[in-house]
Parts: sequence; C-alpha cells; structure tokens
Amino acid sequence: MRLDLMTVVGILAGMAVVIAGIATSGSLMLFWNLPSVLITVCGSFTALLIKFNFDQIKKVLVTTKMAFTTSPTERTELVERFSWLAKKARREGLLALEDEINEEEDLFFAKGMQMMVDAMEPELIREILETDISQTQRRHELGQDVFNTWALLAPAFGMIGTLIGLIQMLSKLDDPSALGPSMAVALLTTFYGALLANLIFIPIVGKLGLKSDEELLGKKIIIEGIIGIQSGMNPRILDEKLKAFLPPDARNAEGTQEGGPAINAAG
Amino acid sequence: MRLDLMTVVGILAGMAVVIAGIATSGSLMLFWNLPSVLITVCGSFTALLIKFNFDQIKKVLVTTKMAFTTSPTERTELVERFSWLAKKARREGLLALEDEINEEEDLFFAKGMQMMVDAMEPELIREILETDISQTQRRHELGQDVFNTWALLAPAFGMIGTLIGLIQMLSKLDDPSALGPSMAVALLTTFYGALLANLIFIPIVGKLGLKSDEELLGKKIIIEGIIGIQSGMNPRILDEKLKAFLPPDARNAEGTQEGGPAINAAG
Amino acid sequence: MRLDLMTVVGILAGMAVVIAGIATSGSLMLFWNLPSVLITVCGSFTALLIKFNFDQIKKVLVTTKMAFTTSPTERTELVERFSWLAKKARREGLLALEDEINEEEDLFFAKGMQMMVDAMEPELIREILETDISQTQRRHELGQDVFNTWALLAPAFGMIGTLIGLIQMLSKLDDPSALGPSMAVALLTTFYGALLANLIFIPIVGKLGLKSDEELLGKKIIIEGIIGIQSGMNPRILDEKLKAFLPPDARNAEGTQEGGPAINAAG
Amino acid sequence: MRLDLMTVVGILAGMAVVIAGIATSGSLMLFWNLPSVLITVCGSFTALLIKFNFDQIKKVLVTTKMAFTTSPTERTELVERFSWLAKKARREGLLALEDEINEEEDLFFAKGMQMMVDAMEPELIREILETDISQTQRRHELGQDVFNTWALLAPAFGMIGTLIGLIQMLSKLDDPSALGPSMAVALLTTFYGALLANLIFIPIVGKLGLKSDEELLGKKIIIEGIIGIQSGMNPRILDEKLKAFLPPDARNAEGTQEGGPAINAAG
Amino acid sequence: MRLDLMTVVGILAGMAVVIAGIATSGSLMLFWNLPSVLITVCGSFTALLIKFNFDQIKKVLVTTKMAFTTSPTERTELVERFSWLAKKARREGLLALEDEINEEEDLFFAKGMQMMVDAMEPELIREILETDISQTQRRHELGQDVFNTWALLAPAFGMIGTLIGLIQMLSKLDDPSALGPSMAVALLTTFYGALLANLIFIPIVGKLGLKSDEELLGKKIIIEGIIGIQSGMNPRILDEKLKAFLPPDARNAEGTQEGGPAINAAG
Repeated sequence: MRLDLMTVVGILAGMAVVIAGIATSGSLMLFWNLPSVLITVCGSFTALLIKFNFDQIKKVLVTTKMAFTTSPTERTELVERFSWLAKKARREGLLALEDEINEEEDLFFAKGMQMMVDAMEPELIREILETDISQTQRRHELGQDVFNTWALLAPAFGMIGTLIGLIQMLSKLDDPSALGPSMAVALLTTFYGALLANLIFIPIVGKLGLKSDEELLGKKIIIEGIIGIQSGMNPRILDEKLKAFLPPDARNAEGTQEGGPAINAAG
Repeated sequence: MRLDLMTVVGILAGMAVVIAGIATSGSLMLFWNLPSVLITVCGSFTALLIKFNFDQIKKVLVTTKMAFTTSPTERTELVERFSWLAKKARREGLLALEDEINEEEDLFFAKGMQMMVDAMEPELIREILETDISQTQRRHELGQDVFNTWALLAPAFGMIGTLIGLIQMLSKLDDPSALGPSMAVALLTTFYGALLANLIFIPIVGKLGLKSDEELLGKKIIIEGIIGIQSGMNPRILDEKLKAFLPPDARNAEGTQEGGPAINAAG
Repeated sequence: MRLDLMTVVGILAGMAVVIAGIATSGSLMLFWNLPSVLITVCGSFTALLIKFNFDQIKKVLVTTKMAFTTSPTERTELVERFSWLAKKARREGLLALEDEINEEEDLFFAKGMQMMVDAMEPELIREILETDISQTQRRHELGQDVFNTWALLAPAFGMIGTLIGLIQMLSKLDDPSALGPSMAVALLTTFYGALLANLIFIPIVGKLGLKSDEELLGKKIIIEGIIGIQSGMNPRILDEKLKAFLPPDARNAEGTQEGGPAINAAG
Repeated sequence: MRLDLMTVVGILAGMAVVIAGIATSGSLMLFWNLPSVLITVCGSFTALLIKFNFDQIKKVLVTTKMAFTTSPTERTELVERFSWLAKKARREGLLALEDEINEEEDLFFAKGMQMMVDAMEPELIREILETDISQTQRRHELGQDVFNTWALLAPAFGMIGTLIGLIQMLSKLDDPSALGPSMAVALLTTFYGALLANLIFIPIVGKLGLKSDEELLGKKIIIEGIIGIQSGMNPRILDEKLKAFLPPDARNAEGTQEGGPAINAAG
Repeated sequence: MRLDLMTVVGILAGMAVVIAGIATSGSLMLFWNLPSVLITVCGSFTALLIKFNFDQIKKVLVTTKMAFTTSPTERTELVERFSWLAKKARREGLLALEDEINEEEDLFFAKGMQMMVDAMEPELIREILETDISQTQRRHELGQDVFNTWALLAPAFGMIGTLIGLIQMLSKLDDPSALGPSMAVALLTTFYGALLANLIFIPIVGKLGLKSDEELLGKKIIIEGIIGIQSGMNPRILDEKLKAFLPPDARNAEGTQEGGPAINAAG
C-alpha cells in the first residue's frame, strides 16, 4: 500500500504548468476570486450531495486513497504462489493449505482458500466468489461515479457562474471601462470548472478504473487457481492456465526461473 | 420510509450557494423574469407531455418521492433474516415459515415465500421473481427517463428562449443603451435551463438510479435466499453465499455477533 | 386505436408557450422567414432522402400515426384473457380454443394460438414468435430512426443556415445599421432547428420508443401464455407467472376480483 | 444492382436547397474559396490516411457504390424460393437441388446449398455460415467507419480552418474595414465541414448501415432455410418459420397466392 | 514488421495541408508560441501522468510503434498454413507437427501447437488461448486508451489556455490596439489542441483499433485451426471452415490454386 508517486507528481506538475503559463504573461492574483471558487466547487458539491447519500460521500475518502496508492498484490506473484500451492496440495493434500489461510491478508484469497479446504462444491465456490467480485466492482464503480459526476458538474457550475457574471455585467453597461474586467471575472468560473474536471477529476476517474480492473483481474486469477487446485488439476497445466492471464514478458521471465520455457515445461 | 435529508439539504444548499454567488455582486431581482421562467420550465414540460402519457406523468410524483425517502429494508438485515429463516426451516420444516408471510410488508418477499411454501418448482419461482424484478427495473427506468428527458430538454428550451431574446434584440438595434440589458434578459433562460438540469434533474436521476440498484440488489438476495432454503441448502453455506452480496465490513460485523469470523464459522 | 390526446395537447401547448414567450416582447412576424424555413426543414429532409429509401419514407406516415394513437390491447386484459383461456383449455381441450382465433384481431395472438392448436412443438412456436417480435422491433426502430436522424439533422441544417447568413452579413459590413437585423435573420434557422428537434422530433422519438416497448412486452406475455397453455401448466400457476409482467397495483386489483389475494389463491 | 435514385436525388436536392438559400440573398461566389476547400477536404482526408491503410481506402470506392445501388435479392423472394426448394427436396431428395447451385449468383447461397448437398453436419454448416456473416458485417462496418470518421473529422478541420482565419485576422486589426470579409472567409471552412458532414457523410453512413442490416438479415434467412431443408423440416412449417422474418403485409400477400391465409394453411 | 508508410505519409501530408493553408494568407511565425505549446502539450500530458502509471506510459512507445508498422502475419497465409498442417497431421500424426513449433516466431501459435502436440484436452486449450486473447485485447485497449485520453485532454487544455489568455486580455482593456493580437495568441492553444487531437491522436487511436482487430482475428483463426486439427477434422472441411474468416476474393484466389472452386472441392 505504498504511495503512488505518479498521481501526486502528475497533479503538482499540471498545477505548475498552468501556473507557469499564467505567470509568463501576467499576475497570478488575477486568477483568484473567492466567490467564483465557491460557486464552482461548492455548487457542484451540493449537487453531489443530492445524488449520493451520506455513507457514499464518506467512502469517497477511501476511494480517493485508492487512487494515490499502489496495490501490493502483483498478478505475477499470484501466479507463482498458486504454482507453489498446487504442488503442495498434490504432495500433502488440500488440508495442508489451511496454514496459509491464517496468515493471509487478502480476505478474498483467504475466504476462497477456506471454502476449498472445507471441501465445498467447486460450482458453489465459484458462484460465491463471483458474487463477491461483482459486489467489489459495484463498490468501485460507485467511487468512480462520484468523481465522474463531479467531472460533469464542475464545468456545468463553472458555466452557471459565468452566466451569472455575464448577466450582471450586461445589465449595467453604463461604465464601458468596467466591461473587460467584469467579463474576465465572469470567465473565471468556467476556467475553474475546466481545470478541476480535466486536471483532477477525469484523470482520477481513469486511474480508479484502471486500478479496479487490475484488482478484479487478480481476483479472477484467484478463482481459477482455487477451482483448479480443488479439482486436482495437474500443477503444470494449472500454471499454464494461470500464466495466460500474464503479459508475455512476465511469463517468459518466470519460465526461465523454472529452467526452461513455460510451453516446453508443460510437456 | 424516512425522509432522505441529504436530498433536501443538497437542493437547499445548492440554491444558497447560487443565491449567495449572485448577491455578493448584485441584485437578486435581476435574475427573476417570469416569461423566461415560463419558456424554460413550461416549454420543456410540454415536450415531456408529448413523450409520456398521462399515467406516466402521474407516476412521476411517486417516483420523485422515492428520491426523497430512504428505503427501510437494509441488505444486512435481509441476510441476517434469511440466516434465521434457513435455520427455522431446517428445524421445523418449510411450512413453519408460513406465519412469516402474513406479517410481511414487502410484497416481493411475501410472494416468493408463499411460492416456496406452496412447493412450486425452484426454477419456476426463480423465473417468476426475475420477471418481477425486470418489470420493477422497467418501472424505475421509466421514472428516471422522465427526469433524464427533462434534464436534456430544460437547457434546450433555455437556449431556445435565449435565441428568441437575441433575435428580438438584434432586430431593433436603434437604441444601443438597451443592448446590454436585453441581452442579459435573453441569457436568463439559458441560466434557468442550466440550473434546473445540473442542480435538480441530473442529481435526482442519479439518486433514483442508485436507489433502484440498491432495491434490485435486495430482491436478488431474496431470490437466492428463497431458492437456497427451498433446495435445503445448509444454513451456514446459504449464509456464506448471501454474505457475498454485502460489503466486507458488514460481513465481519455480523460474523462477530455469531462468535467468530464468518469464514471460520462455515468450517 | 383512439387518438392519443396527450401528444396533440403537448405539441399545441408547446407552440403556445413559445408563441406567448415571443409575443410578450415583440412581433411574431419577426420570427417568420420563408427561406430560413426552407433551409432548415427542406435541407434536413433531403439528407433524410439520402439515408432512407422511398419505402421507408412512406412508412413514416404509418409510424407517426402510432405516436398519435393509443393501442387497444392492455397488458392487464391480456393476462386476464390467458387466465380464462387456460381454464377453458383444461376443461375442454386445446382444440376448443380454435373459435377464439377466427374472431381475433391481433395477428400475432392469432398466429400463436393457431400454431398451438396445430400442436407444433413449443420450442418451434417460441422460435417463430420471437423471430416475429425481433422483426417488429426492427420495424419500430426504423421508424424511430427516421425521427431520430431528423432530430440530429434539423439543428445541423439550422447551424448551416446561420453560417450562410453570417458569412453574407460579414462580407458586406458597409452599412452598420443593417448588421443587427441581418444577424437576427441569420439566427432564425438555428431557432427553427432547435424548436423542431426539441419540441417535435425528440419527444416523438421518445413516445415511439415507449409505445414500442409496451407492444413488445405484450407480445412477450402472449408467448409465455401460449407456451404455458400448450405445455398444460396449471392455470393458477400460469396466472401467477403472467401477473409478474404487471405492475403491483394491477395485480392486486385483479386478484381481488377472483376472491382473494393472488398469492394465496395460488396455494 | 440498379442505381438507387433516392441517394442521388437526395444529394442533388440538398445541394439545390443550400444553393437556393444562398442565392436568394447574395452571390454564390462568396461561398467559394479554394484554400478553405483544401483545408477542410484535404486536411480531413490526410487524417483518414493515417487511420486506414491503402487497401481499406481503395475499398471505399466499392463501399460507396453500395450506397448508390439497390440490391437485387428481396427477402420476400428468398422466402418464396425456399418454400419451393423445400418442396422439391421432399419430392426428389436433397441431391436434386444441386442444379440450383451452378446457376446461383449469390455466393453465400451457393456455398450453403453446396454444403447441404454434401451432407455436412447442420451445426458445422451453421457455424461456417455464421462466421461468414460476421466477416461480412466486419467488412461493412469498416466501410461505414471510413465515412463515419470523415463525418467527424470534416467539421473538426472546418473548425481548425476557422481558427487559422481568426488568428490571422485578429493579429492584424489595423484595417477595420477588412475585419468583416476576413471573418466571412474564416467561417467558410466551418460551413464546408458542416455541409460535408450533414449532407453527405452522415446520411451515407446511415444508408450503408441500413443496407448492411438488410443484407445480413437475408443471409440469416438463408441459414435458417438451408438448415431447415437439410433437417427435413415440413415445408409448410419451414415456410411459417421463414415468413416470421417478413413484414406482416408481405406475409399476407404471399399467403393469398397459395390459396389461403398462411396461418390456416399450416393447419 | 515493415514501416507503415501510410501513417507517416498521412501525418506529413496533413501537416503540409495546414502549413500551406496558413502560408497562403500570412506568416507561419504567427502560429508559433512556446508558452501556448507548453500549456496544451505539457498540461494534457501531466493529466495523463495522473491517470496512467509509469509502466503504462513506457508501453506507449511500444504501442506507438504498432501504429507505424505493418504486421507480417496475413490471415490468408494463416489459412493456407493450417490447410497444409492439417494434411500433414493426417498423414504423419500430430507429433510430426512438433518441428513446426521450434522455428515458429509467433508465440501464440507456438503455444497453441505445443499444447495440441502435448495432447491437452481441446476445451482446456481453447480456454487458455481465449484467456490469452482477452489479455492481449486488454493490453491493446490500454494503449488505445492512452491516446484516446490524450485526444480528449489536448482540446480541453487548449480551451484552458484560451481561457487564461482571454481573462488576462479582458482584465487590461486599456490599450485597444493590443486587443486583437492578444486574442490571436489566446486562440493559439485551442488551435494546437484541435490539431493534435484531430490530426494525430484520433487517427492513431483508430489505426491501433483496426490493427488490434486484425491481430485478434488472426488469433481466433489459430484457435479454430488448432482445435480442428486436434479433433481430427477432415482437412477439406477445416479449410472450408477457416476460409469463412477470409474476404470472398481471398477465398477464390486460393481456391483456384488448388484446382477448382473451394465449394466444389469440399464435395
């Protein structure tokens, strides 16, 4: 659960690019206006409050953390581990895997292993674990939905803020010299909305989606591994089957460790 | 069926943010114009009248209520209840569950239980209840469709209103001093349309969708629970199966009540 | 096949709102310009001629009629009718249902009943009727596609008309006093396009979609009913199965007529 | 393979409407500017060259021809023909159909008939023909994709051309009298892009899609017909099954030719 | 793995068209502004850094190479090869195919062949190879996603840059003569964003998608070929089955080489 440096670096670098772009030809203070910030940020946040209930809003903090950390479980390690577990199960029997469960941090892995050791029917194990995956996916999508909705509403409230500024400006055209600065202020909310959506919310939704995909793929490997071990599949064939979930370079790297290419080893 | 405070609070807070944003730099009265309200709100509503028939429009009131209330049946309670029902059925037989049906408020639950007690075939029960779910989903989607259509049409009629104002303004450019205020008024309909869509309709569509998902998930748990009890599934395994529908924290919390982690308890 | 008043009322009311909005602050004649009407309406219609062939264009008239009428067959009546047919078939045999076919106006219903009476295999009946449904859906979607395409092209040709007006206006800036009125005329095509799309085409596409859904659902009930009767399903269970297609209030209403709640009646 | 008059008429009529709309209030020459044509048409075409390879670009000519011609094989004729083939097969055996193959122009039909006469297994015939259909669909979608991409890129390069014109105009504001005409020229690329997309590319993509659907539906009828004949299905039942692919009026028309309504005839 | 000339030619030609369009009516230097380039390109790239992790960004280089090269394996060659392999397997047995594996460059082909020679069950081979395909597809989609996200973010940061320029310009309206040039500079970022998206990113995403489709289709042919050989399918029938994946002209061309039309040959 280490910090995902890229996310932080990306946001800071994006800020730096925009600030540098502003500073090369004018004052930064021109781009700070508290009421405009309030309309864009708070306005879109109140619309979020209408859509999501309090529990869901609280979970956003948890979801956001997910975008800023990297998951510890790697797919390659998972496949290696099942290779080892399948050999152990073949030598010492399924019950010998019970020790693995107590030390396990991944609740999904532990739950699947426990059901396997308890000799539940494979189809029932698969059904329960797939329900678990679909619920995990549902929770992940809810977290993405919060940021996605925000990414849509922030520019919308930016536009609403600009409309307010334009209407106020146009209604009192007495002083033509105030026209420019008033319109500059009116455009600030559109600027805030575009920046929030494109620099923060859209990339974070994307990152959450990619991390969710990776996590769900890991869980699919766990299901195939557990069902394979329980049905007494040949460890080499199970290894071949799970390696299909890895990118080609990861497969070769591991194959070499075992003394030959993965394909020949299956012979 | 308690009031969902968040929805009300969100709308009021959103209104407050917009009103505060306007009031800090001008008069609120500038933003009130009855003909503009009529074109935006009534114009988009007449388009709704074309799309939906009278029965569907009437049901909008019912649908709207759903966005402002919280449903009483919690998924966690459902799972606990089926755990208890499965044990009772095992001890006293399926017919002992008949008492549960008469007191039941949830018609879907009662209907499923009655079919189970009547010893209908599991596949037929599942088919009837899944048809019921798909019809419920259809009705929910119709309700969301009304607000969704409104969310698309309100800004469109806002733009139509602004076009009317612009065309009238441009056709009589004699008095340049009237240009600004005329254009301010023309922009009001766009402002109303954007506000209605982004502060009211889009968040309410989202809330209705989330509540519908939650309700349909509850119904899926009921189907699995009823089929599980009727097929005489071991109560501990049924419990394990239904808990896969709960978020991980809800599972552990309940597991503790039963004296140990859910996974070990299944052993 | 009565006139669907809502569609007519909605279009007239929408026209009235827009006309009232115009009339409160200017002359209606300002918004009438024949060349602008021709570019928006005829331009988008010629694009329709390219996409659709002559037969499809002719069928639009039929499709439009569907949006302005209400279908006679109600789902509730269908379910009641199958309840009665199932009982009759049980008492007097399948052949006794042959009289029903000759008087039947609904060709789909008659065709399904005839195949049932002819003792064709249930799977073949289902396959033929589902092919029929998918072709009906295809025809409905073609009709919706015509209006949907028009809803996209009308604003596009409105914008093309406005571009023509703007280019002509900008190329002769000699007389600044003509600027405003020229631009007002240029904007008229955009106004026409937005009005046609949002007040006429988009709501009609929506209405056609909802009517199509309702009709296809009725056909699905007919399939389930016919297959149920042919397979000799218990009339009470068939009734239970078909009632799952009705909204909860319609189910109770009918259940009461039979002397008790539907669920208990199945016991 | 006759010329599809509607497509040609539609494009010419659309051109006429736009030209008439321009000519009523100004000179046509105003709307001709070679550099603007080059940026919009060639610019978007170079982007097409990046996306598609040379073979795919060449096939566009073939694809375009498809939009301007009508296919000879009618669904109604197909159903009548299978009705005749099924009766012949029943009287004279499957091998009697071999003569039909040599004269057949439709390669898909001939291939399916040959496999049937060769007594290949029905499931293998279905699999091979369905693979063929999915490849045909893939080729059709590629052709539509070319025009679809062009429909998206033409307005985009129109906007790029307008941006170029605007930037050039704004950078030399010395001569205010040149402002209008410069901006008129700048808007020309947007006009060209909108016209190309909405009058040519979008309708042609639509027409190609509709023709592809029709052709694929014909191929599905051929599969069902061939499998039906090979499996020795009763010609009347096969007729009933294939007629479900026709619109209701086409069914009745043919039924009458055979001396009675199709449904009764099946009794 | 030859260079795909079309991609390079397309980009260069597109650049030439835009440069020519600019040069005919002004100086090219007007369209070069370093801070504007930085905001558009670097701003959108930092947002990419937030969404994708470092490994994924590195793989973009590999992905990009795919858009600029043509793949060596042709579908037609694949089908011919399986035709030859099926005949060899029938004459000399499955083990005779082992020599083919060692020389094989395509890892997917080699892996499938090895599993076939090792006599793994067909269903398991299919499952492993389909998992492999779905993972390849996942990796391809990730590469397309990078460019797709960039295609969305480049115009967005272009608009953010223009907003910065507009706000700075409007806040100091003292010198009206500077208005035009300032606005010209402000529009440059929108121009860069539109050009990057429409000339580079969108066509490259399209090309990657088409190449990915072609590669995945080749892998599907390999699966069908290997399963066909292992199940001892008649080489002529397998040939017929795999040819369904080819366009009609490719089939005839090959059929002629074998001395007759493919269909008759299967008799």
